[in-house]
Order: sequence, then structure tokens, then C-alpha cells
Amino acid sequence: MTDASPARPNLSNPRVRRTRDRVLAVARELLADVGPAALTYSLLSERGQVTRQTLYRHWPTREALLVDVILESGDGSTYPEPGNDPQTVITAYLHSLRHGLDGPATAGALMALAAQADRDPEAANTLATISEDRHQALNRLLEPSGLQMTADDFAQLVGPVMFRRFISRQPVTDAAIDTAVSQWLTSRRAGAD
Amino acid sequence: MTDASPARPNLSNPRVRRTRDRVLAVARELLADVGPAALTYSLLSERGQVTRQTLYRHWPTREALLVDVILESGDGSTYPEPGNDPQTVITAYLHSLRHGLDGPATAGALMALAAQADRDPEAANTLATISEDRHQALNRLLEPSGLQMTADDFAQLVGPVMFRRFISRQPVTDAAIDTAVSQWLTSRRAGAD
Repeated sequence: MTDASPARPNLSNPRVRRTRDRVLAVARELLADVGPAALTYSLLSERGQVTRQTLYRHWPTREALLVDVILESGDGSTYPEPGNDPQTVITAYLHSLRHGLDGPATAGALMALAAQADRDPEAANTLATISEDRHQALNRLLEPSGLQMTADDFAQLVGPVMFRRFISRQPVTDAAIDTAVSQWLTSRRAGAD
Repeated sequence: MTDASPARPNLSNPRVRRTRDRVLAVARELLADVGPAALTYSLLSERGQVTRQTLYRHWPTREALLVDVILESGDGSTYPEPGNDPQTVITAYLHSLRHGLDGPATAGALMALAAQADRDPEAANTLATISEDRHQALNRLLEPSGLQMTADDFAQLVGPVMFRRFISRQPVTDAAIDTAVSQWLTSRRAGAD
């Protein structure tokens, strides 16, 4: 690390951007294959055909790398717009979540972290950071509606989708998403009475 | 397998029972360490100091083994009694679920399966079987109350607990369990109106 420049990479440079995206794609595949513990900068440097210096300039910590691996996997095509109506926004958000977890790479990377997190604080922190990032992203979408979610609310909404996707292995149908949203909204309204 | 007897082991024999429990404990540790794909009967035979024949007599398929590894991990100390009051029964069930996932071995084994399930139909089937088993177990506890849960209901209830435990890494507090139960009951009552 003695030669590593402290300067962050210039992401407005298309070549730098391409390198970064390519490394993240390689990291995503590797993470699902070898697990988070074995995803070292040495391995990633070899498979991604970049120097370790470049890796450290993009991601000073492995945690930062792992967060980007999971969060930057979407193609953005289905990411919802902010809106006034909570039901519409939350439903669109869960559809986008489902889409993001459709492919095996991101889903595999997330579960690889989850399988490691009890003995690896870095994996646990990465998962907490990712969850909080997604929670705040939903709150930004909800801003025009005036409604904001607590972490508890977020777990109530997202938990059933995650359970189907990763544990009970039932399809995350539109109906399942509608149930999650309407149950949450119903109990919220009832609680507000 | 040519010498394997088709007779199932006699579990009322304490020695057979001890062997079985010991092998399951070894398998649980191995599963969290090496993942489901690497948990072969050869490895388990070596580490558990039993013959492969014995393994096949107890568990004719690896899926049967993996189901037992996860489901028979509890000490039974906190398993709830059936009851008339859904809120009491469901709350006790979720407390018991939390207790079962407290230790790293069972939780690690479950996540190891989840991390593998997109490319390993056996892991996916095991997870589906385990979820359905737990869903039906809850319904048996609820029988005196007259209430029965669909798979959708079960995902709504258990999902938030699983999300906290494995993804957002927030503590599964008593308050979080109370929220999950009361939200579900509230929306159910509202839906019944």
C-alpha cells in the first residue's frame, strides 16, 4: 500500500467507470462462488485484471467494496419514482426489490454475506449498512407522501418478501407483494386510530 | 450401498439415538463451515466416526439429513404449548423461533442452504420443506384457537423476524416480535370486517 495514492478515482472518466463496473461484476460472481471470506483483494486483482492499488483506491475497505457489490447490481430500469401515494410507492419499491434479487449473482452475494455474518463482523456490518441504505432509499421515495418508515416498519414490509425469496422458496408473486403492502398499511391505519 | 440394510434404525435404542444425535451435531457444524455442497456422506462418515452405511440407514437422502440437521437443533426447552389465544401462541412461537436461531450453528446451517439454493435444487427443496414443517407446526399449536394460517400469513409473521436476524442484523427484541404479531392480528381483524 506504500504506493497507493490517496486520491479517489475520477468516476466521470468513462474508462475509470468501466473498470469499476467490470470489477464489481467480477466481485459479484466471485462472492457468490467463494463466499465473502475468500473474496480477497489478491483474488479480485487477479480475476479482475486490475492492480491491488486500483482496488484500494476505489474501495479503501473491503466493507465498502461489498456494499457496492450488492447495491450497484441493479440496471436501474425498474427503480421507482418518488410519489404522493404510499401504497403505489411501496408496491413499486417491492417490485424493484424483487427484480434486483431475481438474478442469482446479487442474491447469492447477499446470502453469502448472511451465511458468514455470525462469525465475521465485516459481513454483519455490510448487511446492516445495505439494509439501512435501502430503508433510507424507500424513505426518500416516500417524502412527497409525508409518510416515513422506521426500521421496524421496513422489516415488516421487506421481511416477508425476503422470506419467500430465500427461505420458503415460494415465488414472490404480485399478490404476495400486495398482501405485504396492504397488511402493513391496514395495521398502520388501525394503529393511528 | 450393496450391504446397506433397508431397515430403518431403531430410535428407541438409546445407543442408536445417541449416534444419531452426535452425527446431527457434527453435520450441523460442518454445514456451517463447508456449506451444503461439500457436506458429503464421506466427509460426515469420517468426522462423525460412523460408517456410510449407518448414515444411509438413518437418512436415505441428503435432503432428509439436511432437514433433520436444521429442525432437530432445538433443545425443546422453549417450545410452546398449543392454546386458545392466537396472540399468546404466536408470540410464544416466535420467541421459540428466535431461541432456535440464537446459536450460530443452526443459523449458519440455514444460511448455508440459502446461499446455495439458487444453484442447488436439493438445498432449495430442503428450505421449502423446513418452512412448510414449521408452518404446519404453528398451525398445530393454533388448533385449539380455531385459527389456521396460510403460507402467506406465515411469511408475513416470520419474515420480519428472519429479516432482522439474518439481513438487517438488528436484535430480534421482544418489542419487534410484539409488533410483528400485533400488526398481523390487526390487519387480519380489519380484513375480516
